[in-house]
Amino acid sequence: MLEKVDLTKKLSKEEYKAKMPMLETKLSCLQRQCREMKIPVIIVFEGYGAAGKGLQIGKLIHGMDPRGFEVYTVKKETEEEAMHPFFWRFWTKTPAKGRIAIFDGSWYRKVLIDRFEKRTKERELPEAYYSICSFEKQLTDDGNVVIKFLLDIDKKEQKRRLEKLKGNKETAWRVSQGDLERNARYREYQTMMEEMLQKTDTDYAPWTIIEATDKRFATVKIYTTVIRILTEKIEKVKKEKAKLRATEVLDEIEEQKKETDMQQKEKQQIRELQESILAKADLTLSLTKEEYKKKLKKLQKKLEILHGELYRRRIPVVLGFEGWDAAGKGGAIKRLTEKLDARGYVVTPIASPNDIEKAHHYLWRFWKAMPKDGHIAIFDRTWYGRVMVERIEGFCTKEEWQRAYKEINDMEKDLADAGAIVLKFWMHIDKEEQKKRFTARQETPQKQWKITEEDWRNRKKWDQYEEAVNEMLLRTSTEYAPWVVVEGNSKYYARIKVLQTVAEAIEKRIKEERK
Amino acid sequence: MLEKVDLTKKLSKEEYKAKMPMLETKLSCLQRQCREMKIPVIIVFEGYGAAGKGLQIGKLIHGMDPRGFEVYTVKKETEEEAMHPFFWRFWTKTPAKGRIAIFDGSWYRKVLIDRFEKRTKERELPEAYYSICSFEKQLTDDGNVVIKFLLDIDKKEQKRRLEKLKGNKETAWRVSQGDLERNARYREYQTMMEEMLQKTDTDYAPWTIIEATDKRFATVKIYTTVIRILTEKIEKVKKEKAKLRATEVLDEIEEQKKETDMQQKEKQQIRELQESILAKADLTLSLTKEEYKKKLKKLQKKLEILHGELYRRRIPVVLGFEGWDAAGKGGAIKRLTEKLDARGYVVTPIASPNDIEKAHHYLWRFWKAMPKDGHIAIFDRTWYGRVMVERIEGFCTKEEWQRAYKEINDMEKDLADAGAIVLKFWMHIDKEEQKKRFTARQETPQKQWKITEEDWRNRKKWDQYEEAVNEMLLRTSTEYAPWVVVEGNSKYYARIKVLQTVAEAIEKRIKEERK
Repeated sequence: MLEKVDLTKKLSKEEYKAKMPMLETKLSCLQRQCREMKIPVIIVFEGYGAAGKGLQIGKLIHGMDPRGFEVYTVKKETEEEAMHPFFWRFWTKTPAKGRIAIFDGSWYRKVLIDRFEKRTKERELPEAYYSICSFEKQLTDDGNVVIKFLLDIDKKEQKRRLEKLKGNKETAWRVSQGDLERNARYREYQTMMEEMLQKTDTDYAPWTIIEATDKRFATVKIYTTVIRILTEKIEKVKKEKAKLRATEVLDEIEEQKKETDMQQKEKQQIRELQESILAKADLTLSLTKEEYKKKLKKLQKKLEILHGELYRRRIPVVLGFEGWDAAGKGGAIKRLTEKLDARGYVVTPIASPNDIEKAHHYLWRFWKAMPKDGHIAIFDRTWYGRVMVERIEGFCTKEEWQRAYKEINDMEKDLADAGAIVLKFWMHIDKEEQKKRFTARQETPQKQWKITEEDWRNRKKWDQYEEAVNEMLLRTSTEYAPWVVVEGNSKYYARIKVLQTVAEAIEKRIKEERK
Repeated sequence: MLEKVDLTKKLSKEEYKAKMPMLETKLSCLQRQCREMKIPVIIVFEGYGAAGKGLQIGKLIHGMDPRGFEVYTVKKETEEEAMHPFFWRFWTKTPAKGRIAIFDGSWYRKVLIDRFEKRTKERELPEAYYSICSFEKQLTDDGNVVIKFLLDIDKKEQKRRLEKLKGNKETAWRVSQGDLERNARYREYQTMMEEMLQKTDTDYAPWTIIEATDKRFATVKIYTTVIRILTEKIEKVKKEKAKLRATEVLDEIEEQKKETDMQQKEKQQIRELQESILAKADLTLSLTKEEYKKKLKKLQKKLEILHGELYRRRIPVVLGFEGWDAAGKGGAIKRLTEKLDARGYVVTPIASPNDIEKAHHYLWRFWKAMPKDGHIAIFDRTWYGRVMVERIEGFCTKEEWQRAYKEINDMEKDLADAGAIVLKFWMHIDKEEQKKRFTARQETPQKQWKITEEDWRNRKKWDQYEEAVNEMLLRTSTEYAPWVVVEGNSKYYARIKVLQTVAEAIEKRIKEERK
């Protein structure tokens, strides 16, 4: 692509002055519309050193309401960032619905500067491109607009600018050794850029190349591009909304269609043939109180030691707990953490998303809670809500939950690639056992808070949940993040199995590292 | 995923007999509906040797109208296939709208058997997974249903079956050395399968794992799955059609909205800022008749020799010609091929697609015409029609042509990866020159057939075409398949530039191979 770019383009001062006021007014009006329509916008600036990224961002935000955007400068990762998976710092910075996030440098660093300086190994590149495309696809699927600018100048122009900056003692500090090196090996760096363009110029997040030799030309092109893309998006959203209204009637007719007995019977038959991972669980497994106490003591001691070892080796651990209501998630988590150093783990209970969380991608709140190297993050309910409760209650569309299996696998892969141990537990009991526990809760005053009307309502959808859980266990049990079905009719047995599984996974990893 | 599968599932003879008639009737009815609604269906069977792929395909087609499907058995590639890019044989087998293609083995061979037997190198895997996902995405985006079955049996069961087959002299030939080897190293093969599942279990083409220990169970599950997926697709298409009708009114209102002068002015301004690759072309370049004749003779001689060299080295060449009407595509192609051995090249003129072509993916007809190793394929107009005439005339949706840049880049990458030299020429003239040539054609009796009303109509859309061409040149000029803009106001100059570029590209490749 780059070889086709005409870097001689320019704009006179008069033309520039004539155009800008109109463009600024227009942009600010579009920003307001995006806010009202809850459209999140991400604008990425990449390009050669001294191509004017900072200047252009300054020009761009000049036309915006300062309460509606954030600017993030992406430099070499901080200590805190280095202790998280690569995409953590970008996921946590994705804009809320209606806001604009501007990136001066971005996730492309990984395949540009970091590659040039050999911090990214060549063999890591396919995964890096995959993760970048997956990240942008997930965001645009979720309604984000992603605008990507590449500021292009040629070797000579770059050299001229770097020398000018160096020559002035007020700006000399802005020229790094890396800048000079990339200018000296301009052609090599350009080849990396070209590959990056080819791998990531997608229909959902296309690149716009900005001829940046003339600053005025660049500013006007950036404004015009943002205006064009936002206008198109707003038109599209409006149209979709109009269509939605026009077809609501159709959907209602659809829903009112009662299922015939025949169809219901068919559905039942299909269910019988589907994955029945839960049915395989042997719920008669149990432990006596004595066995339990003995094992618990031993395992807790062991975990305490392993926890220290994890910390020293800087291995992060992610443990997700899902399961039927009253299956014993809380009890297992309690026994797991009881003897651990409280500074080294966090338990995050997951309820329905709050307003801020709802204004982001559904994975955003989980990314935020992912552990630093050496720490343990325990989730009491997880991101799998997307393919269970959200699927069954219709909180997301079918397309959304079907897409989620891969999105979740991709997220867990990113965690695992960053060195994390990832385990997911499904706490399993049968319907009878649940009823017993519900009733017991209701009859024990100090446990009554644990049981609500909603629990009984969910219980009525047992079959639907079972179907969803089976599909989830099958599609998202991977080598890097396996599901463990915990036979939970005996609480003793279940707790020991959880602790043992965690201990074994940690031991296995440590053993591998020692090799 | 595989570790979660319950291979003990079975179905009694009675249950089987009770279920099958209904399932067969249902399937045949769905097949008819798919034909009527022009839905193309692809069903893939993969799995362990002796898991019963052949048997199950036999059972499945029993419920189908034989005039509506094809079964393809994918073995080690034939000599003919080996001389084409890997995906050529699958692209050419994709079903027409309303038909069903069943694959006994498939493109997954590349990441399974071929990987196990080290014909696929480990370093080729990321590209292979990328190509597989891209292939399936393009097809499903185009309305295909892709159903993928993985037939799963365990090591012991496989061994038992292989021994039984071997023990009978009528079936012994069906057991290959490879089957035994894969059984002996079952775990290793399973790991490859697991990775394959994780990389290719997408929302647009998910895998269904079939517990194949019990044949009856497997048959019923396969039928039920196909029935479920086709029913869902038909419902979806129906609903979309209903929505389309419901919103046609909206679209009409949209279209009737006249563009204000202001908007038109804005559009013009945007156009000025966009890529202007064509504007850079120096159309004053020319050659005298004498220079032309001398150079032409020399180049044609050289190409003749290089053509032989290509054939010996088995290098395929793909040359695409696009350009303004009357820009001289035909003349250039004629000079290029004049002295070549007619057995070693094919010129494919591209007109509007015929009915059969329209019933396939837009890239299908081009894949079919791709050259064997050592041959030259010349296209007079190309797959770029998608982002030019189809874009401008509204023959495809905006989403479709925007997606096409990446689809086309992916196709050309597959060709290049398979060793092809890929070059694309844009024959460029200015509007004045075109008018001169049109008029000349009209006034010369033997050239009148070359000029039609449509040419004049297209000419009126010059600006729109210019915008589309600039975007196309920018987004699809890659290192592995570059665009060459040919300054064509002087026919002599243009022809020589084409021949010279082709000769240089071939020489460069041969030089690289000699290294």
